[in-house]
Amino acid sequence: MKKRFAGELLLVIYDISDDKLRQRVADFLKSKGFTRVQKSAFVGRSLPAIKVEVEAGLRRLIKGQQGVNIQIYPIPPSSFNRRVVIGEFLFEDSGGVEVF
Amino acid sequence: MKKRFAGELLLVIYDISDDKLRQRVADFLKSKGFTRVQKSAFVGRSLPAIKVEVEAGLRRLIKGQQGVNIQIYPIPPSSFNRRVVIGEFLFEDSGGVEVF
Repeated sequence: MKKRFAGELLLVIYDISDDKLRQRVADFLKSKGFTRVQKSAFVGRSLPAIKVEVEAGLRRLIKGQQGVNIQIYPIPPSSFNRRVVIGEFLFEDSGGVEVF
Repeated sequence: MKKRFAGELLLVIYDISDDKLRQRVADFLKSKGFTRVQKSAFVGRSLPAIKVEVEAGLRRLIKGQQGVNIQIYPIPPSSFNRRVVIGEFLFEDSGGVEVF
């Protein structure tokens, strides 16, 4: 199955030192329908409601925590479709990603 | 100083388990004029020559190595300028980044 995105996407990359918090962030992004593309990177659709929820949810999750940096890039689908991947996918749930 | 990009950019994100190799990748991206935006993420201008050099250089660096995933996203300047940053910058050379 070839999965293609239409409309703006959000690329979320994070640098979180605490294992549990990092896992909570990953779980949260999955719950919002985001797809893991790297150990600490997810991509999802940037519908207006999702955008607000994701940003607010991430701020809530990391509130008062140290050692956290999260960046959300709004990108066009072409940025995703033209990305270059070097090396191997290193996370368990990578099965579905290579066919994007 | 407000630094603004014109023309396409490359956002490079990587997941590299070996400390020395990770450092070599960071040094290589810096040598190509890229700016660190997160511990394992750099942004730089996507001039045609640079694009080719960066991709070829990264492939050369990780050749034969395990535990490496590098992704290069071509993004418009607006993706960078509209990015949302949550939390703090966690690397030493972050001084110049917050004023992008």
